[in-house]
Amino acid sequence: MIRRYVYGQPWPSFSCVQEICPEAEPMPYFHVQQAEKGLTFTTKLEKDEAIYGLGENVRGINKRGFVYRSYAVDDAPETESKSALYASHNFLVIKGGKRCFGVFFDDPSLFEFDLGFTDPEEATMTSRYGKLNVYLIENRSVIAVAKEFRQLTGRSYIPPKWAFGYIQSRFGDCSEEEINRTLDEYRKLGLPIDSFCLDIDCLDEYQNFTWNPVTFPNPEQFVREKQEEGIHLIPIVDAAIRKDDANEDYRRGKEKDVFCKGPGGEEFAAYVWPGLCAFPDYFQEKTRKWLGDRLQRYLRMGISGFWSDMNEPSVFAGQGGFRRAAELASATDENYSFLGFGRMMGIGQLLYDEKSDGKNFCHRIDDELAENPEVHNLYGGMMAFGMDEGFRMYNPDERFLLFSRSSCIGSHRVSGVWLGDNHSWWSHLLMNLKMMPSMNLCGYLFAGADIGGFNGDTTDELMLRWLELGIFFPLMRNHSCWGTRKQELYRFRYSEKMAKIVQIRYSLIPYLYSEFMKAALRDECMYRPLAFDYPDDPRAAGIEDQLLLGQECMIAPVYEQNAKGRMVYLPEDMLMIRMSSPDSMEEICLARGDHYIALETEQLAFFIRKNRAIPFAAPADKVKNIEESSIRMIGWLQEEYGYEYYNDDGISRQISQDNLKIIPCKP
Amino acid sequence: MIRRYVYGQPWPSFSCVQEICPEAEPMPYFHVQQAEKGLTFTTKLEKDEAIYGLGENVRGINKRGFVYRSYAVDDAPETESKSALYASHNFLVIKGGKRCFGVFFDDPSLFEFDLGFTDPEEATMTSRYGKLNVYLIENRSVIAVAKEFRQLTGRSYIPPKWAFGYIQSRFGDCSEEEINRTLDEYRKLGLPIDSFCLDIDCLDEYQNFTWNPVTFPNPEQFVREKQEEGIHLIPIVDAAIRKDDANEDYRRGKEKDVFCKGPGGEEFAAYVWPGLCAFPDYFQEKTRKWLGDRLQRYLRMGISGFWSDMNEPSVFAGQGGFRRAAELASATDENYSFLGFGRMMGIGQLLYDEKSDGKNFCHRIDDELAENPEVHNLYGGMMAFGMDEGFRMYNPDERFLLFSRSSCIGSHRVSGVWLGDNHSWWSHLLMNLKMMPSMNLCGYLFAGADIGGFNGDTTDELMLRWLELGIFFPLMRNHSCWGTRKQELYRFRYSEKMAKIVQIRYSLIPYLYSEFMKAALRDECMYRPLAFDYPDDPRAAGIEDQLLLGQECMIAPVYEQNAKGRMVYLPEDMLMIRMSSPDSMEEICLARGDHYIALETEQLAFFIRKNRAIPFAAPADKVKNIEESSIRMIGWLQEEYGYEYYNDDGISRQISQDNLKIIPCKP
Repeated sequence: MIRRYVYGQPWPSFSCVQEICPEAEPMPYFHVQQAEKGLTFTTKLEKDEAIYGLGENVRGINKRGFVYRSYAVDDAPETESKSALYASHNFLVIKGGKRCFGVFFDDPSLFEFDLGFTDPEEATMTSRYGKLNVYLIENRSVIAVAKEFRQLTGRSYIPPKWAFGYIQSRFGDCSEEEINRTLDEYRKLGLPIDSFCLDIDCLDEYQNFTWNPVTFPNPEQFVREKQEEGIHLIPIVDAAIRKDDANEDYRRGKEKDVFCKGPGGEEFAAYVWPGLCAFPDYFQEKTRKWLGDRLQRYLRMGISGFWSDMNEPSVFAGQGGFRRAAELASATDENYSFLGFGRMMGIGQLLYDEKSDGKNFCHRIDDELAENPEVHNLYGGMMAFGMDEGFRMYNPDERFLLFSRSSCIGSHRVSGVWLGDNHSWWSHLLMNLKMMPSMNLCGYLFAGADIGGFNGDTTDELMLRWLELGIFFPLMRNHSCWGTRKQELYRFRYSEKMAKIVQIRYSLIPYLYSEFMKAALRDECMYRPLAFDYPDDPRAAGIEDQLLLGQECMIAPVYEQNAKGRMVYLPEDMLMIRMSSPDSMEEICLARGDHYIALETEQLAFFIRKNRAIPFAAPADKVKNIEESSIRMIGWLQEEYGYEYYNDDGISRQISQDNLKIIPCKP
Repeated sequence: MIRRYVYGQPWPSFSCVQEICPEAEPMPYFHVQQAEKGLTFTTKLEKDEAIYGLGENVRGINKRGFVYRSYAVDDAPETESKSALYASHNFLVIKGGKRCFGVFFDDPSLFEFDLGFTDPEEATMTSRYGKLNVYLIENRSVIAVAKEFRQLTGRSYIPPKWAFGYIQSRFGDCSEEEINRTLDEYRKLGLPIDSFCLDIDCLDEYQNFTWNPVTFPNPEQFVREKQEEGIHLIPIVDAAIRKDDANEDYRRGKEKDVFCKGPGGEEFAAYVWPGLCAFPDYFQEKTRKWLGDRLQRYLRMGISGFWSDMNEPSVFAGQGGFRRAAELASATDENYSFLGFGRMMGIGQLLYDEKSDGKNFCHRIDDELAENPEVHNLYGGMMAFGMDEGFRMYNPDERFLLFSRSSCIGSHRVSGVWLGDNHSWWSHLLMNLKMMPSMNLCGYLFAGADIGGFNGDTTDELMLRWLELGIFFPLMRNHSCWGTRKQELYRFRYSEKMAKIVQIRYSLIPYLYSEFMKAALRDECMYRPLAFDYPDDPRAAGIEDQLLLGQECMIAPVYEQNAKGRMVYLPEDMLMIRMSSPDSMEEICLARGDHYIALETEQLAFFIRKNRAIPFAAPADKVKNIEESSIRMIGWLQEEYGYEYYNDDGISRQISQDNLKIIPCKP
């Protein structure tokens, strides 16, 4: 059952699709009071209670024991010191022996979660402005609560099927030539690929909706050629627009009055990648229309996928910021002290000040002006709505690919996400795994991390192990940052091993797509910690390095340098599938309990739950070339069992029950 | 067998105590050649070969698969991106089925280890200047190689026994009053303690050899009072000295010509904590004498322990650095671009430039002038030698406590270390464990990390779990940084649980001290990965979250948030000891293999190897109050077995065989 409680006068919300009448009674479980920092919601925690949710954040699947913050920021690296990442997802589930409920704090501004940090036996949530809707969902299990929450907030975004293919990406060195070279090398390796992401170096001076004239001299022709080869190009769209009358998109926006302004009508401007920028006010319909219009030239070229970035929004510096920094630096004289040093080192902090530099950063919502901090966390989501409206304007019947860095609850209906600008760290491989069920709980099914790590230098072994995890997630992108070791797979000593792992991905796509679609259509979580499915198994509650995938599988990647295997806990009898290529499959029945699984660097394992089986196709070089006729079932094969297989044309928005069929699992 | 190979004309070395005649033949195993980056040493790696060593560094116990660098830096945080930390320890052991050898690159300057990073099957070491001694040690096992290496480089530093007690520390908020309050609170909790570290906030404007007049108004009296209570105060000594004629220590140094100078005789000066500083040239005997002289006033007050910091050496800014930064900041005008932003953010990088700001940073070695980069990695170690000479000047017969941030091979004979400025991260708790055997291999037995984490905010659970590991390491210090959550143990909700864990420490000290002393006297490693002791067990090779402690024990801490237990691999039958206080002991015999060990937050477990037992004393409030008569044996008790127990007065440098006795282990 879902109950709604209203505090203060909330801004209109875009998060829910169900209208729930507010309760008059006080909310159970929580003690609510106005405190200095804001409106607080406090609940005592039982010793056995776990806390799940919060979408994109650091630390464990069970979030208990630390303090988290919803205020979208662009602030790598994602270390254990961080409390806030690129998105804000204010939904959590508290689950213990006595209580099981979800609570969604529908608050677009700064919101803090002290989940047993100050006091290990208490959780306190604080809303800075105290203007919010709170939805309380009580049900018998985490899974049931999650389903109700999805029904409240709407069906998860569904991308085109080709988006399940391998995506190559690189910030800094991309060009027509590089893409062709990579395709050549991948062809030689037999490494399947469907798409390339184009980062801001592919733009003209980092400006949205342009092409870099040096590296992409013939974009129309190049896009068409790649399309003929079956390769999708996925351009980037950043949040801000260069404030420059020579820029047509900016001029149009100014004509249509789409940019954020202050109370006196002055346009807000701040520095980001392209220089001094205006920030489209995506809260307004006309702005979203302006954005959608901008996409039409891409769509007409045949492009059908985008990624959107810098939409927390990220601001490098305000107009006053440089002046302040310069003044500070000049004022430092020979009378040096440690404090002077500290100030100099902290110059980065001076470059943008929300109060002074951001005083004109306002949004117009229903004819009211909201300062950005009041609705900050929705910005990326509102931009996603604008992208989606642009897609529908072009073709209302087909799906388009969209994944975003910032996000909020609500925009999960129109967009996927990648899990932020991670590092080439083993700990981030594991963090990638831990984030997935939290993202699913908050509605984001189409998600994945930058495989191999975005920042920092990856290694052959880390890349290979990360691929062995990444092939199991819907968004499978290898992306890395300018200045780091290049990580196109052909560049590695282990490139042949890597190619075989990507081949396994393509063999698994029939299953992954089927489970993804069923989870989306049925409002379920595709990735779950063991605790969700085995609530009565106390061991399952502590397992944070394995995940259930769909209804049939469990994954358990290796995430340690030089490891030649790992311990895996089986909450029931399972069939282990160990492989290093689609045709090297080894199957071993394992009993419930702990097992050491030997895994050479090029080997991965996954586990099929008792009496289940999954479809597995012959390898293909592209998603569209996966032959349905090549599918065979692997797992516990027996007469009486069938796998509920979903497939469709991969592109229509229209979803039909006819797309479901039962595949028998005869031995 | 140890063989020595000489390349170029090395600087005089302080690392070895044995004189080995150089070989004329080329060194086996390695292909040596002059390359652009320096002199390279390359060896092919067999698939099964592990690489151990490198002392203080990030990543695994097995270092294979990444690139590491010896060039001591003050550069927190210790993430997986880092290749160099505060120290440099150029000893590694390559161990596989076919080869087992150690190699020590005795090079005081920039040295790089590419251990399967560029090519997973190759290791390449690069000496920037190509002036070095290389020692090759071939033997049957890692343990045997390690012993030979210690014999080459000399007996490990032995502190006074009181240094095994619990040490409280805090940077930023320390005062006579705070220390008294903490002692009061600890007394109420029954929390044993022996010492307090005093950080630079206890100094007068961060100047060495002073007292903060506000927070330590009566230092002589305070030191005496604490001494009467059995509490040791451990002042800090930083590397550099404020360049100020009002500073007597500086004046004396100038008179005696002890500071680093350039080729033209100009004194080197750069900014550190106390402002513009001179850097003592600890390579010169007269400088070490000057340092030793400075210590005498502390020693006469009754102080008998120090920690030394900032001795990489850390330099915040050069004299030209501020000017460059100020100019850059002022030059940035409204024609802003991303590159301008990047430059502004990178201002910190401009503040010290080794070439221009460091041009006078030279050391005098045997009447030759060495630029700091050529012998950079020895600076911290040479300072430690100076401290040690000062101790011996005061009292040649007694041991003094010294632990340092920077270190090198050689100074392990006169100093311990703490493992750098870590963070309050679960991953650093585990890193702490992984560093210990690498430190031991390189000669550092007296070591430990800042428990609870230095930077960042700790939590009740992290602090408690970290104590559960920290009690097993020789240096047991709780230390944290200004601006982070205060972490004196009485401040936590779990303070009573924490007090009981510290009590266990004191019960274990007879064992820990005995094993420490035997390891020091016999040139052995006190902490070892399972791979060292069970070389024929392939599972043991992969275990990097458990350690063997001494000859009897294995430790396996919990290092995950919210975990209520962990998997432990037993390479042989062992007796598990699970406890949450000295009198809550539970003993369970476990067979070789994998076991899930349930451990509530307040419970730790350790494991006693088959047919062994360890001494365990009744709790005491201070090391000196541990009653030998209260010792009982715990473990596999049987008539035919005895534990070889070492104990002494804890203070004399004179070590006697009479300090060893066999304690019977009768049931």
